[in-house]
Amino acid sequence: MLNENIYCGCVTEKLLDQTIEINGWIRKIRKMGAITFLDIADRYGIVQVILKNNYHFELTRESVVNIKGKVVLRKNPNKDLATGKIEIVATNITLLSKAKVTPFVVDDNFVAFEDVLLKHRYLDLRRSVVQKKIIFRSKFIHALSNYLIEKDFIHIETPILAKPTPEGARDYLVPTRNGKNMFYALPQSPQIFKQLLMVAGFLKYFQIAKCFRDEDLRADRQPEFTQLDIEMSFIDEDKIMSIVEDLLKTTLKKTMGIALNTPFMRMKYEQAMNFYGSDKPDLRYDLKLVDLTSFFQNSDFNAIKKNIAEKQVIKGFFVNDIIITNSNFEQINKYGIDKGLPSFYFTFKNKKCLFNPLGKKIEKKNLENICQKFNFENGSLIISYGPLEEVNEALGACRIKVNDLYKIANDNNLCFVWIIDWPLFEYNKQEKTFVAAHHPFTSPAKESLATFTTDKVNAKARAYDLVLNGYEIGGGSIRITDFDIQQRMFEAINLTPKQIQAKFGYLLDAFKYGVPPHGGIALGLDRLIMLLTKSSSIKEIIAFPKNSHGIDLMLNAPSQTDPKNLDDLFVKIK
Amino acid sequence: MLNENIYCGCVTEKLLDQTIEINGWIRKIRKMGAITFLDIADRYGIVQVILKNNYHFELTRESVVNIKGKVVLRKNPNKDLATGKIEIVATNITLLSKAKVTPFVVDDNFVAFEDVLLKHRYLDLRRSVVQKKIIFRSKFIHALSNYLIEKDFIHIETPILAKPTPEGARDYLVPTRNGKNMFYALPQSPQIFKQLLMVAGFLKYFQIAKCFRDEDLRADRQPEFTQLDIEMSFIDEDKIMSIVEDLLKTTLKKTMGIALNTPFMRMKYEQAMNFYGSDKPDLRYDLKLVDLTSFFQNSDFNAIKKNIAEKQVIKGFFVNDIIITNSNFEQINKYGIDKGLPSFYFTFKNKKCLFNPLGKKIEKKNLENICQKFNFENGSLIISYGPLEEVNEALGACRIKVNDLYKIANDNNLCFVWIIDWPLFEYNKQEKTFVAAHHPFTSPAKESLATFTTDKVNAKARAYDLVLNGYEIGGGSIRITDFDIQQRMFEAINLTPKQIQAKFGYLLDAFKYGVPPHGGIALGLDRLIMLLTKSSSIKEIIAFPKNSHGIDLMLNAPSQTDPKNLDDLFVKIK
Repeated sequence: MLNENIYCGCVTEKLLDQTIEINGWIRKIRKMGAITFLDIADRYGIVQVILKNNYHFELTRESVVNIKGKVVLRKNPNKDLATGKIEIVATNITLLSKAKVTPFVVDDNFVAFEDVLLKHRYLDLRRSVVQKKIIFRSKFIHALSNYLIEKDFIHIETPILAKPTPEGARDYLVPTRNGKNMFYALPQSPQIFKQLLMVAGFLKYFQIAKCFRDEDLRADRQPEFTQLDIEMSFIDEDKIMSIVEDLLKTTLKKTMGIALNTPFMRMKYEQAMNFYGSDKPDLRYDLKLVDLTSFFQNSDFNAIKKNIAEKQVIKGFFVNDIIITNSNFEQINKYGIDKGLPSFYFTFKNKKCLFNPLGKKIEKKNLENICQKFNFENGSLIISYGPLEEVNEALGACRIKVNDLYKIANDNNLCFVWIIDWPLFEYNKQEKTFVAAHHPFTSPAKESLATFTTDKVNAKARAYDLVLNGYEIGGGSIRITDFDIQQRMFEAINLTPKQIQAKFGYLLDAFKYGVPPHGGIALGLDRLIMLLTKSSSIKEIIAFPKNSHGIDLMLNAPSQTDPKNLDDLFVKIK
Repeated sequence: MLNENIYCGCVTEKLLDQTIEINGWIRKIRKMGAITFLDIADRYGIVQVILKNNYHFELTRESVVNIKGKVVLRKNPNKDLATGKIEIVATNITLLSKAKVTPFVVDDNFVAFEDVLLKHRYLDLRRSVVQKKIIFRSKFIHALSNYLIEKDFIHIETPILAKPTPEGARDYLVPTRNGKNMFYALPQSPQIFKQLLMVAGFLKYFQIAKCFRDEDLRADRQPEFTQLDIEMSFIDEDKIMSIVEDLLKTTLKKTMGIALNTPFMRMKYEQAMNFYGSDKPDLRYDLKLVDLTSFFQNSDFNAIKKNIAEKQVIKGFFVNDIIITNSNFEQINKYGIDKGLPSFYFTFKNKKCLFNPLGKKIEKKNLENICQKFNFENGSLIISYGPLEEVNEALGACRIKVNDLYKIANDNNLCFVWIIDWPLFEYNKQEKTFVAAHHPFTSPAKESLATFTTDKVNAKARAYDLVLNGYEIGGGSIRITDFDIQQRMFEAINLTPKQIQAKFGYLLDAFKYGVPPHGGIALGLDRLIMLLTKSSSIKEIIAFPKNSHGIDLMLNAPSQTDPKNLDDLFVKIK
């Protein structure tokens, strides 16, 4: 019944000699004397139509037409098209909707300014390459749901109109006609709800959940985003990680024909920082950081001497077979400086140092010793020195920029890695206090249970992040469900009983009525789908995205409102 | 892998003599001397566990425990339980989380005040009867998605942070840190977006969409609700109706094993009003309104005489075999009076009038003539008189109340009916003007195309509602895509060009670039699932519902916020 319509992209030689009817958009018009060739397009593709002057209206690109005609073989088949062997000789064409000149050409190869595309997103979405991404998103998310439903997870919708957090930072607040000085808040995540669903006994929950964050918008952030939210009872981190692996393996096989290797690599947070200078390392390329401090123990270079005296480090990474140019290095170095430290670079050929910007301050011999030790022959070495954490971060940033410039990574690779053994706390330098690195319901690791309140620096969490090609695409943890541990956790981050009650009162109340051990994860679907479709921005895989200022250019939203409307909501403009 | 856990409800004789481990909640405790019987429950059901004093903590209901033990046959099997043939003799029991006394007993048969249940919704959700509804919701919505994905519909997420409508009535407005005097609005429906997606060429769209309406809350309304939103191009109303029929037939078969008869009955709006006094008639029972005016042409009763002189009507309906009592009739009549008119009732036995409250004002002979004509022998007749529309509405309300009181409908029936041929306009008595009955993009019927601006009273729309058991569960229309018709429509409802631009500017702009003929429907999933699960309120099938004042009693939301947070949003309390 649904297939009564014949779609443009589906007209093949199977319909040869039949008289058919199609509907679609005029994507291209080519006149050759008395004959006009049209490309008629729809979601399924393009079919060529031949008109022999039998039309009585102006043909414009992007107009919508109905065409009746006969399917015939083409003289010159087009191998690139599914419909390329045939064409339709029109007996009748009806104009259903005339299009005026579009602000940009609806063509995969046409480039326009983002503002123009976003303002006319309905036209941008007509382009095959854009449409295919939105279609992939639909199929991919459905495949995720399918897997989880088959594994007996329950999809549960949690409220969008939820409760403001006491701080309110980054909450979208929603006033209501039904209460003066009363606000709902849009959820930053369904965290509290999914934990309550475990208290309620659902055992295995998931949701394709909309989340909201009103923050200073950086490049490629959206005020609303979609996550796959999962929570389970009576499990541990191994089980959650293996379910996510199987979930991704199954859905990528189904939707993209890709065979992922599982289990994914696991890397401790500390290793990720030491080897890649990042808690979300891109493992499609190596460029691993190595500690070079021992090679400089006897250096005469004052800066290095001071560095070693202060028990700081010298680290670097090799770029095989690439002689970095000076102008490229300037760009690379800028990224490291942004993270706090400058770098230096050296180049080598056959283990001989070609370029040493520090001249006599660092002897070539030292540098060549390094090559010998690491069996490095040709290419460049980038080093930096200072406190370990800063060196890691600076070199980590340089490492990413080197790949950007020299395209070392294979774009077809999908390198998933779990980052585990996270710190339980983060030190807030401004406030001079420790805060929960994830959220205060994240369980301390077993080996930190006794000591996490006294040795906050080394306390580890039962938390795990999933990283793909240098992007964090998910994170989760095993939650605290023991009342005493929770109390100690709150004390460790200096919450008063009053604050505890205001922030988490209803969750703690719920935990008093029998809470199962539980944990979960949330995957950022926008970012994951961006990576899977090789898009350069999440805007490309969202049907109606906002620009980087949070503005929907098509709708012109947010926008002003009649003050009378605000009266009804008991608020006014400041 | 996921099935490593053995769930309480799944322990059957297949596991006989095995030593297993389960986790669950202690639902019941019965002590018999040295032996304790526990019912251990999880989402899958209950299993009986026997303890022989081998535990060292206080057993409380709803505590979470881990139990190791051996599966043995029961002496007295319980046929009502899937696990009823066996029990587990515990060798070890570990307390995972101790529960304090719950505010109500977690038991399907226990009744508590709604406020108490909502405040502790996580406990209410633990009850098997409640949990099963949420689980059904998940399976049902997934089955809907499955059907549509298989039919090549694309699931597309449209924005939650959208644009305020110019009137703003019923919009939730959302201020933002990123703009002073700027507001997003939460969508009342994705109507504009789904039409833009047709302009974008997606052909077949659907979405499980969250919608929002900030209105005075009546019984059983929620400020946020979920609809299945569908839109298609190059189709007509017959195709949309048949897709929805096949969708429901397929999913109800799959999730409930119910075989629906399709196509569903179709009834014109005018018929629905004339026969059932409602645009959402409950067809599980007959109680059809009949016109009795002709029987009273010669009546001496002044009120009736006046009625006939003014060309008004007398209508009524028969209640077979039920002799309505006076006290019940008072309740029934109250419903009709609320709609504008009082009714009268008469009772009959063997076509003889038993009770005639009007005495000589209406002669028994007249009434018995009616019985003769309609071959009505025993039961009651309820009549009312006045203007046709008011009589229909009053008797329609009485008809519903008769069923409420006498339980005429079979609760197991699902009576779907399409209401078609809707009026295009509605007369707004206060404003003395015609407004669009649905929305101003609803296409006039073909036979009204020439006359809809001049004969607004009789103009018909290409609109259709789906009704189930007296509830509107969906509605849609074929949209206007012709520029001239759209202009005439706007003129008919007295919109100025400025208003048109402000309200619908971006949609009309989009239509200028080639719009396909399209139409769609939205199904209210909360109400549909309420009916399918025989719930008495949509609150029962929403995981975390708000009460009838829009308050989430568990979260205590909406709630006050620190004025400082409002500063950041450029608003303040009035």
